[in-house]
Amino acid sequence: MRIFITGCAGFIGSNLTDRLLREGHEITGYDNLTTGSMEFLKEAEQNKAFTFVQGDILDPDLLTDSMRQCDFVYHLAANADVRFGTDHPRKDLEQNTIGTFNVLESMRKNKIRRIVFSSTGSIYGETVVIPTPENAPFPVQTSLYGASKLACEGLIAAYCEGFGLQAWIFRFVSILGERYTHGHVFDFYKNLLANPRELRLLGDGHQKKSYLYVQDCLDAIFLAVDKAEEKVNIFNLGTDEYCEINDSVKWITGHLGCDPALTYAGGTRGWIGDNPFIFLDCAKIHGLGWTPKLKIKEAVIKTTEFLANNQWVFKEK
Amino acid sequence: MRIFITGCAGFIGSNLTDRLLREGHEITGYDNLTTGSMEFLKEAEQNKAFTFVQGDILDPDLLTDSMRQCDFVYHLAANADVRFGTDHPRKDLEQNTIGTFNVLESMRKNKIRRIVFSSTGSIYGETVVIPTPENAPFPVQTSLYGASKLACEGLIAAYCEGFGLQAWIFRFVSILGERYTHGHVFDFYKNLLANPRELRLLGDGHQKKSYLYVQDCLDAIFLAVDKAEEKVNIFNLGTDEYCEINDSVKWITGHLGCDPALTYAGGTRGWIGDNPFIFLDCAKIHGLGWTPKLKIKEAVIKTTEFLANNQWVFKEK
Repeated sequence: MRIFITGCAGFIGSNLTDRLLREGHEITGYDNLTTGSMEFLKEAEQNKAFTFVQGDILDPDLLTDSMRQCDFVYHLAANADVRFGTDHPRKDLEQNTIGTFNVLESMRKNKIRRIVFSSTGSIYGETVVIPTPENAPFPVQTSLYGASKLACEGLIAAYCEGFGLQAWIFRFVSILGERYTHGHVFDFYKNLLANPRELRLLGDGHQKKSYLYVQDCLDAIFLAVDKAEEKVNIFNLGTDEYCEINDSVKWITGHLGCDPALTYAGGTRGWIGDNPFIFLDCAKIHGLGWTPKLKIKEAVIKTTEFLANNQWVFKEK
Repeated sequence: MRIFITGCAGFIGSNLTDRLLREGHEITGYDNLTTGSMEFLKEAEQNKAFTFVQGDILDPDLLTDSMRQCDFVYHLAANADVRFGTDHPRKDLEQNTIGTFNVLESMRKNKIRRIVFSSTGSIYGETVVIPTPENAPFPVQTSLYGASKLACEGLIAAYCEGFGLQAWIFRFVSILGERYTHGHVFDFYKNLLANPRELRLLGDGHQKKSYLYVQDCLDAIFLAVDKAEEKVNIFNLGTDEYCEINDSVKWITGHLGCDPALTYAGGTRGWIGDNPFIFLDCAKIHGLGWTPKLKIKEAVIKTTEFLANNQWVFKEK
């Protein structure tokens, strides 16, 4: 099978690419390299079954052309920058909503029927049901990022109904692991490198978040694609535990052997539209036989180890 | 108060314009006149408090410029063509999702805080909860139209959270009444004019739909804007009854005094992505003290009377 992966040079995308190549698939990887890195495709590039196209999902002609001969699309390219949405509201609209529309149109033109999409637990907004199942009460959006991913989900489902596509949509918690280059562990580590005696945290440190290790995430995706046969298959992906930001800081500083003075920006939220408690009910994916192998603490430490061994990632940005 | 109305020359928009002018507001009406008609603005144009701008919501500069000095936005401009979404999927994305983004950006530039938005009961997809309340289980989209309105709702809510806007979002059933120029009563009437002896219906005629009279709809909107004070206020608007397509055909032909042979395209759905049963739980708006004055049958007959007296509308398209 020839698989098309958007965002193949990103954190999750490059890990996905390596896994699918190891399983013997042919891959066309597509990435504009604005946040992705060719460094993450070093292993893939050794493999004859891998073809890389540097392209933007906002370039519909190149996208359609590059997708030819493919049987399946993993659409991971996105603006994943949930925190700074209000600084540039057009970015989520273009890179997520319009980009996903372009991917769907290219699939239609190439008669490709199946798509995996990386959505987010952020689309539950400030839900009152925690842990939050996939069929939680119709949520009200609180971030431009969540709103744009919701728009993508809607488009994908409508294409399934209207054009006979089949979709697997995954609402992730934050993902951790090798090649992670974006998010709170990254920021903490970077700041501690610059000054190990002090660390400033957003919010009050009690924001509760759930995290998932990237290989556990990929295991769940492969299982769902294999087993779930609805027209539109929606799954939460997370661990059955959560931690406070204060916990993850403790694990990181403990691993680094530093003891910074902690200061807090204050408030219950890290940023505008931040949800102070994201914790997903993952009973649906568990029902297919999946459980994550790593605890949040282990995933945080693996991430810290990756950052320690790959300090070039801090210079790329 | 100076109110900005997008889609002011449309069915609901022009009725809204007249009502708000009668209440003494100043109105800037904005419409690209692709489906709207200046004929509907005849009364408004006699009023010095009304200013008309022919413009498209996809023209952000003109939109921003026209919105200056306004205090409140009623955003009704949209591609309301739920049936033919799969013929031109880009239309819903552009005219609904991107158009709404432009309206929100223009509001932000003009420091306008309050917006009313016309959404749709179609965003509940094929929900299992009927009658469907606003907090029904997170739905899966079935039409490009519903998906695009969902995207608009998400954007508006995120702007409320991120930029301090306040919104009133109304999920309508189909609206009937004077100046109605789009939908099943229009199609039936037009076809019966051409041939009163035969009428072909989509689906099996048993599709169940709820309808609401346009003036009842406007009463509900004004009440909600007056009374509902959340950051994001979402209301279903419909009647507490439904009819089958077969019923409305009977009322229309009875009123016209014709007795056509009915033929059916077959299937439970009128078109791809059609929901065979739309019936909204309107307890939330009832809680503010609103009830519709007209029954569905009366609204259908009022619509038929309007069409009978305004047969020019069939020639405009």
